Amino acid sequence: MTAQPEIKAADWRVFEQLRYDPILEHALEAFSENGFHGTTVRDLARRVGVTVPALYYHFENKEAVLVTLLDAAVLDLIDRVLAAVADGGADPVARFSNAVEAIVLNMTFRAMRSGLDSELRHVSFENRRTYAATRKRLELIMLDLVREGAEAGVFDVDDAEETVRAMLGMLQSIARWYQLDGPLTPAQVADRYIVIALRIVGNHATT
Amino acid sequence: MTAQPEIKAADWRVFEQLRYDPILEHALEAFSENGFHGTTVRDLARRVGVTVPALYYHFENKEAVLVTLLDAAVLDLIDRVLAAVADGGADPVARFSNAVEAIVLNMTFRAMRSGLDSELRHVSFENRRTYAATRKRLELIMLDLVREGAEAGVFDVDDAEETVRAMLGMLQSIARWYQLDGPLTPAQVADRYIVIALRIVGNHATT
Repeated sequence: MTAQPEIKAADWRVFEQLRYDPILEHALEAFSENGFHGTTVRDLARRVGVTVPALYYHFENKEAVLVTLLDAAVLDLIDRVLAAVADGGADPVARFSNAVEAIVLNMTFRAMRSGLDSELRHVSFENRRTYAATRKRLELIMLDLVREGAEAGVFDVDDAEETVRAMLGMLQSIARWYQLDGPLTPAQVADRYIVIALRIVGNHATT
Repeated sequence: MTAQPEIKAADWRVFEQLRYDPILEHALEAFSENGFHGTTVRDLARRVGVTVPALYYHFENKEAVLVTLLDAAVLDLIDRVLAAVADGGADPVARFSNAVEAIVLNMTFRAMRSGLDSELRHVSFENRRTYAATRKRLELIMLDLVREGAEAGVFDVDDAEETVRAMLGMLQSIARWYQLDGPLTPAQVADRYIVIALRIVGNHATT
């Protein structure tokens, strides 16, 4: 759905200008500015410069546009996290830290897109399912990393699932306040959150 | 603005049915169901059962309604947190843990209201100011608690401000997934997040 190339292992810290097809690009802007409910299909068509029927040719409805955007965003993030984890080699702490870094870089470099996640609650259960399944994959990747560290004796958690949920919630919330023209670079934010995330998973030795 | 009584020190764990004046009560429902942009002043007036001019008599515009709701929610939360902290006596760990518990109970018992926070990004900078100032008070209360613990030698943080921001982001995100009819009670969620929050502030001894 996106023109974004798959991420190579060496490039997971590189964030190029995001390129979507025109409908998704304009939809991202419109939903971010006016919210899902504040954007009509007519608005979208006008922004894209097509007719309403032309828009419906590509997407069943407005929900489908939002879900496609959100789903593409998480798929893209998962690609990046997997590349980051692979780049961490065999060290559970490096693998986990890289994953956290990839998520924070995503939330900062892609703050507008990541912030869209909050519009999800306006989407019907049916249409939310694909996205929920993709989002679940990200949770499972993080859960594996936490368990891997626990088995290696470098992490110590009481409840790995709740820990991952809490941590992802914390990282997701970065998109709500971060501004690229603000005082902190994405790398600086990442550094701070890696420390906090390592604390959450009980990596006392490193922090 | 709300009929909610001030919270007594002993009652900070008690969450009665929330009572607002009719305009705010219906606005909370409408904004939660359809988003800020998806709700018109006409919708609001119809739900409340008044005319549009009557609504404008009470609120300057739709943004003022949302900001009033959000501001009342944080003021209420601050009352609760202060009562919880006082209830923790002189022990920095108990004071901090109580504050986290109060926030989690608020995010779970008041999930709909707390979730409204994500609509804030649709509000103009000007109208957001009062809310931002109130929200800042909550951050400063938490910051004091973290510093108090650090001075007492029971907490250990690198960057107290970022730690508080990350922790509040984590706690805020609970409102996005929590459902009162789900498998976890608010008290159970609170127990888990107290453990995680204590880790974040480097309270190795207790966790």
